[in-house]
Amino acid sequence: MNIDLNSDLGEGYGPWTMGDDEALLDIVSSANIACGFHAGDPSIMRRTVELAAERGVAIGAHVSYPDRRGFGRYDLNIPPDQVQDDVLYQIGALEAFARSAGTRVSYVKPHGALYNAIAVDRALARAVIAAVSAFDPSMPLLTQPGGAAAEVAAAADAPCRHEGFADRAYLPTGQLVPRSRQGAVLTEPDAVSQRVLDMVQTHEVTTIEGQTIPLHVDSICLHGDTPGAVTLARAVRDRLTNAGVHIEAFCPA
Amino acid sequence: MNIDLNSDLGEGYGPWTMGDDEALLDIVSSANIACGFHAGDPSIMRRTVELAAERGVAIGAHVSYPDRRGFGRYDLNIPPDQVQDDVLYQIGALEAFARSAGTRVSYVKPHGALYNAIAVDRALARAVIAAVSAFDPSMPLLTQPGGAAAEVAAAADAPCRHEGFADRAYLPTGQLVPRSRQGAVLTEPDAVSQRVLDMVQTHEVTTIEGQTIPLHVDSICLHGDTPGAVTLARAVRDRLTNAGVHIEAFCPA
Amino acid sequence: MNIDLNSDLGEGYGPWTMGDDEALLDIVSSANIACGFHAGDPSIMRRTVELAAERGVAIGAHVSYPDRRGFGRYDLNIPPDQVQDDVLYQIGALEAFARSAGTRVSYVKPHGALYNAIAVDRALARAVIAAVSAFDPSMPLLTQPGGAAAEVAAAADAPCRHEGFADRAYLPTGQLVPRSRQGAVLTEPDAVSQRVLDMVQTHEVTTIEGQTIPLHVDSICLHGDTPGAVTLARAVRDRLTNAGVHIEAFCPA
Amino acid sequence: MNIDLNSDLGEGYGPWTMGDDEALLDIVSSANIACGFHAGDPSIMRRTVELAAERGVAIGAHVSYPDRRGFGRYDLNIPPDQVQDDVLYQIGALEAFARSAGTRVSYVKPHGALYNAIAVDRALARAVIAAVSAFDPSMPLLTQPGGAAAEVAAAADAPCRHEGFADRAYLPTGQLVPRSRQGAVLTEPDAVSQRVLDMVQTHEVTTIEGQTIPLHVDSICLHGDTPGAVTLARAVRDRLTNAGVHIEAFCPA
Repeated sequence: MNIDLNSDLGEGYGPWTMGDDEALLDIVSSANIACGFHAGDPSIMRRTVELAAERGVAIGAHVSYPDRRGFGRYDLNIPPDQVQDDVLYQIGALEAFARSAGTRVSYVKPHGALYNAIAVDRALARAVIAAVSAFDPSMPLLTQPGGAAAEVAAAADAPCRHEGFADRAYLPTGQLVPRSRQGAVLTEPDAVSQRVLDMVQTHEVTTIEGQTIPLHVDSICLHGDTPGAVTLARAVRDRLTNAGVHIEAFCPA
Repeated sequence: MNIDLNSDLGEGYGPWTMGDDEALLDIVSSANIACGFHAGDPSIMRRTVELAAERGVAIGAHVSYPDRRGFGRYDLNIPPDQVQDDVLYQIGALEAFARSAGTRVSYVKPHGALYNAIAVDRALARAVIAAVSAFDPSMPLLTQPGGAAAEVAAAADAPCRHEGFADRAYLPTGQLVPRSRQGAVLTEPDAVSQRVLDMVQTHEVTTIEGQTIPLHVDSICLHGDTPGAVTLARAVRDRLTNAGVHIEAFCPA
Repeated sequence: MNIDLNSDLGEGYGPWTMGDDEALLDIVSSANIACGFHAGDPSIMRRTVELAAERGVAIGAHVSYPDRRGFGRYDLNIPPDQVQDDVLYQIGALEAFARSAGTRVSYVKPHGALYNAIAVDRALARAVIAAVSAFDPSMPLLTQPGGAAAEVAAAADAPCRHEGFADRAYLPTGQLVPRSRQGAVLTEPDAVSQRVLDMVQTHEVTTIEGQTIPLHVDSICLHGDTPGAVTLARAVRDRLTNAGVHIEAFCPA
Repeated sequence: MNIDLNSDLGEGYGPWTMGDDEALLDIVSSANIACGFHAGDPSIMRRTVELAAERGVAIGAHVSYPDRRGFGRYDLNIPPDQVQDDVLYQIGALEAFARSAGTRVSYVKPHGALYNAIAVDRALARAVIAAVSAFDPSMPLLTQPGGAAAEVAAAADAPCRHEGFADRAYLPTGQLVPRSRQGAVLTEPDAVSQRVLDMVQTHEVTTIEGQTIPLHVDSICLHGDTPGAVTLARAVRDRLTNAGVHIEAFCPA
């Protein structure tokens, strides 16, 4: 039994740092690397790609709306064709560092508001998928199951992989509980780890209201910028490997 | 007899335009396309690449210091390793649009202050050449003959092509007369055209002081953002083709 | 009888130009000067302020969402408190150049998407008005009549002035006909001029559907970046002055 | 006996933080607040100004070259007149937040590479001083003693105040020992505190080579972004106040 663990990395900017990239790169099998639009700059991209490549961690383009100050968290309402151009630009920029490090960009995972937007906005989802396909028709998009992006990708026969969230509560619909609601974010390492193991072994998750729903995922997203992030991530990895689950990139280089 | 004609293109930004790209793309064989650091944005890059690809014009990455407001004209004194990362980022970003248009980036030509800096600063020249080689060891740098970049490339066995300037006067050293000096810029189409034809046929140019010096070039740079630019460029092309010189990219896609 | 004429100015950026600022500054009585967020940079702001001050043209802060590439045209969905901070920042920056030129910022007119957003979004309108009041409680906001901003300003007892559009058709509701609809933009100088004179003299305008509705405005907005803009603007001014209407800033320095 | 303590504050950007502003604001009497060019954004500026105003800490505009990614540390070689415009823009922007908080910008202290550049480049020093004077002829520049800026200010009869560095070694010339040299940065709180007390009481400092030289300063710069910065700053303040030195802004609001 295999599963991928992914985390957002390379999210510093210039003199500013965020998260403990080196610690997380020893835990995850896939690194979503910021491409300079919400975070990251060419030098941070190069270093993060090199660190990932050294460890055999797969590299994903963590593409975003162009908004450093808002960290890609606001839904900017820019037209889909501009988003398509921006996504293609970012994939290409990251690929140059991957190529220089002897590897390649294996997948694309949108960040923040763009990630959320393509789960509900089909025109935007089409734009992102068109950008990924223009770069490489065999390159998968990593997104949540059940949203617009997953449907558009399926309709377009474009490769798509699905992720679950280790530290987020689920609604009965399979969507995430909004962060504003109490109980939306889980922080207790033991409970989070068991929950992830259940997702992987049973393809099910218990919702915030207590019922069990199906959840088929190819990867588990581990957050890197919250307090205790590394401890939580390591607990998840240890629980999985102790249970005999193999941690492996869903799309190796 | 063959020669390449190159011009800087895609140098608008957002709502702002610069030059007549479509007219110039019907004249040149190589397009130096801005990559978003001194000019251009992802949407402009996509459109310019598409226009070039439709016409079979070779695509070069017109890489720059990160300075839109100064249009890449100031020598920013940023360290060579940051410049190396920035150049690699830009090449990769442009390559994504080229790939999407069914072609590729064929060469790299630095812009403005960076172009001038690598003609005199060997550390910076090494950084730019390292970036180009990291992307593709067979990809040539387009620069002026006789400067630091040409020497560093030769020493590193990195491919390098040389260009002459249609509308600029030369010093006896083979360097350009500084723009601040009277007579530095030539504007008369007939004289400029004849001068270019002489460069191509005789591999020589007459300096501002009247003597003839050798000048071996693979390409002629035609400026696109000066008054009368298109008229001048067309006059040069017509004079060359009428004399039987074939206009051809020095590094086709 | 008096009326103010306003136009958007200083909307170049770095090497890129937009519109004919000097020609328009000889026509208008109020200059909405870009503050570096959608257009303009410190050097352009200084020059535009100086040109306005020399002519006794009142200076308004043409504040925007932070989006140069989109020219402030997309409704970015950033939170009202960030918009409030951004507006205050822009007013202050422009005031420094006005002070240096011996004058002051007399009013604030939001640009593009922000202008439209505060006409319908009361929270955003409150944020903009709070920023203006924090800078100077006596400084008026220039906006369209009848929208959320005008209502919020009235409720807060904050000064507000209203403008009409010389070259835009009106709906029976008093709102502008969307640009996407045929007949939304008027271009014939004689018809536009007469229409403006009617607005000023009768406080009424004829809608796109033919009926007459009341329209009380303190200023007429003349666009500067459309083809024939200067000709149209001059025609409006001439028609007004020939009819004995005095062109005067609604809020002089 | 009085002395001012100043520190660089508000140097986060968007989601990224730097230093412990609240702790330092309880120690210093003057806050050099970033204005969005090397660090800071409108929201951070507002919050930092509010925190300073609440504590009665004087507000200085910590103006910089436009370079967030490089944190204002590279000497960008942009022309003095552009620097003048940029400095004026930044002062005005910060003043808006100060005004909103019921106070004002009391002084200007350039940051990083610009700080160093005006200590040796008279044209650049003139540009910065011209910007400060254009905003308010009575507003002092805070700089190091003995450099070009101090001389240019004296010649122009522009107000200038001088600062010493708590944690930096001095050369016999009165200049700072370059950071690259061993012993350039002092970190031991007791030694640093005594050294500052000596500067204040005797107007002298012991150089890295052991001799005593005169050093007349109006303020002591305490760094905020180094490890142990707050501890060091508090030790300096405590030593001064225990010795009966009054900590007071050199230019109160």
